[in-house]
Amino acid sequence: MIVTLTPNPALDLTYHLDVLPLGDVGRVAPAAARAGGKGLNVARVLHQQGVPVHAVTTAGGATGEALAADLPFPHTLVPVAGETRRSIALIEPDRATVLNETGVALSPAETVALLAAARGVRSGVLVVSGSLPPGFPADALADLGGDPLIVDTTGPALLTACRAGATFVKPNRAELAATTGTDDLLAGARTLLAEGADTVVVSDGERGLVAVTADRVLRAWPDRIVAGNPTGAGDAVVAALAAAVPDEDLATTLERAVRWSAGAVAHPQAGELADIEVAAVIEEEPC
Amino acid sequence: MIVTLTPNPALDLTYHLDVLPLGDVGRVAPAAARAGGKGLNVARVLHQQGVPVHAVTTAGGATGEALAADLPFPHTLVPVAGETRRSIALIEPDRATVLNETGVALSPAETVALLAAARGVRSGVLVVSGSLPPGFPADALADLGGDPLIVDTTGPALLTACRAGATFVKPNRAELAATTGTDDLLAGARTLLAEGADTVVVSDGERGLVAVTADRVLRAWPDRIVAGNPTGAGDAVVAALAAAVPDEDLATTLERAVRWSAGAVAHPQAGELADIEVAAVIEEEPC
Repeated sequence: MIVTLTPNPALDLTYHLDVLPLGDVGRVAPAAARAGGKGLNVARVLHQQGVPVHAVTTAGGATGEALAADLPFPHTLVPVAGETRRSIALIEPDRATVLNETGVALSPAETVALLAAARGVRSGVLVVSGSLPPGFPADALADLGGDPLIVDTTGPALLTACRAGATFVKPNRAELAATTGTDDLLAGARTLLAEGADTVVVSDGERGLVAVTADRVLRAWPDRIVAGNPTGAGDAVVAALAAAVPDEDLATTLERAVRWSAGAVAHPQAGELADIEVAAVIEEEPC
Repeated sequence: MIVTLTPNPALDLTYHLDVLPLGDVGRVAPAAARAGGKGLNVARVLHQQGVPVHAVTTAGGATGEALAADLPFPHTLVPVAGETRRSIALIEPDRATVLNETGVALSPAETVALLAAARGVRSGVLVVSGSLPPGFPADALADLGGDPLIVDTTGPALLTACRAGATFVKPNRAELAATTGTDDLLAGARTLLAEGADTVVVSDGERGLVAVTADRVLRAWPDRIVAGNPTGAGDAVVAALAAAVPDEDLATTLERAVRWSAGAVAHPQAGELADIEVAAVIEEEPC
């Protein structure tokens, strides 16, 4: 069973608009409220694909209750005093504007309880995904290595995850640059390897994925352009990495990541995969 | 005691932004969640001014629970199956964009329960304020006359309120035009008088208020320009109308309405009045 840890979940509110009434008052259909946050989207993908998963996250206030009501997979919710944050998506036909609330800081006791809950149910693979609440200690991830650890976050917490010996880290290109200080994708990935990560998988939008290990560089992309909603495509990649069986070849893992990511783009809802026909192109580069 | 009936309450979420990140992803401080809807703002103003008030409205789902947690005055909440709608305000320094969810229709039983709750606590003045939920019967207001009735709504429900003999109706200029089909303010107001209203008070933005009865026309405005947030100014006007004592002169009522409205503009939060020095200018026109 895979355990996902979502330190900073969100209640996603999505509005579909013909046009955003800037400077004015408009009427909109009620939002579809959805449990969100990257780690919960990863769990949703795994659950939909029939992979056993258990999600660990926090819930607080009325938004936390709404989040709790939208979890179709096994989960542990650590109650917290602060209200679960919201994410507001304003979707126009040609433009998506997203406002992510920063979230409320956890108390030290809540932080301890969240990490203990994850350790308590962990039986192997652990996925840590998404932003951290304000003031969350980056070194909280320091002792989560040993068993397979897959981390999708950014900044100091990403570096801590590498030092903990993360099996996979999956920054996108901008997060990699912000964390390592270089715009050179391969140089940035090798910085994370030097910090201790086993494999760095960089998502680069429509250009696909680049996976870098100590002795391999693989590029992977879909064999056709898939139109749709890119939100959640990165979470589908993380789910595909988490679903890797022991000693699986990296090309096999990437092939699944490209297929699931394309399925996520083709589905209007983040965290769900459309059943589309797409294959992955994998190229290994000289290292 | 004044009773306010809010058929279509909302949980108001307000975001303050330096700039709305159109087409992009931005981070924002958590919204201040507030019980909203015009009738609840009216109740908030009355309560703040020391006028006894009892609010009657609906609450459903997690947003309904959040709304229930933010009512500092006596209230009756009719539980409903649909989730209480949200209103999203995106406040930039020079622009305010508001998205009002349309709300969920009430079942016939819920509609009956809401009206019965209002009748059950009513001891005199009743304020009906704000939009109606989808499918709400406009003729539900038909038998609310007799005791003082103050109505701030639009369209067919506003006409029904006039026919019920409303003491005051308070459309803004655009609502009056949309309801009566004429852009001429006095002609529109006289249409509502002909339908049965005692007094029509039209709010006309910075130009102030125009009150029209069968034999009087009074204009009222503040003696200085008040800068701030006009959201909720109309609710302060309605609260001032509701606070009129029996046989109060219309000029006295309007003077209070202008002062409370100016106080609402000067306060950043809808439903609260800043304590500012402002006087009302009242002019009576030949009729």
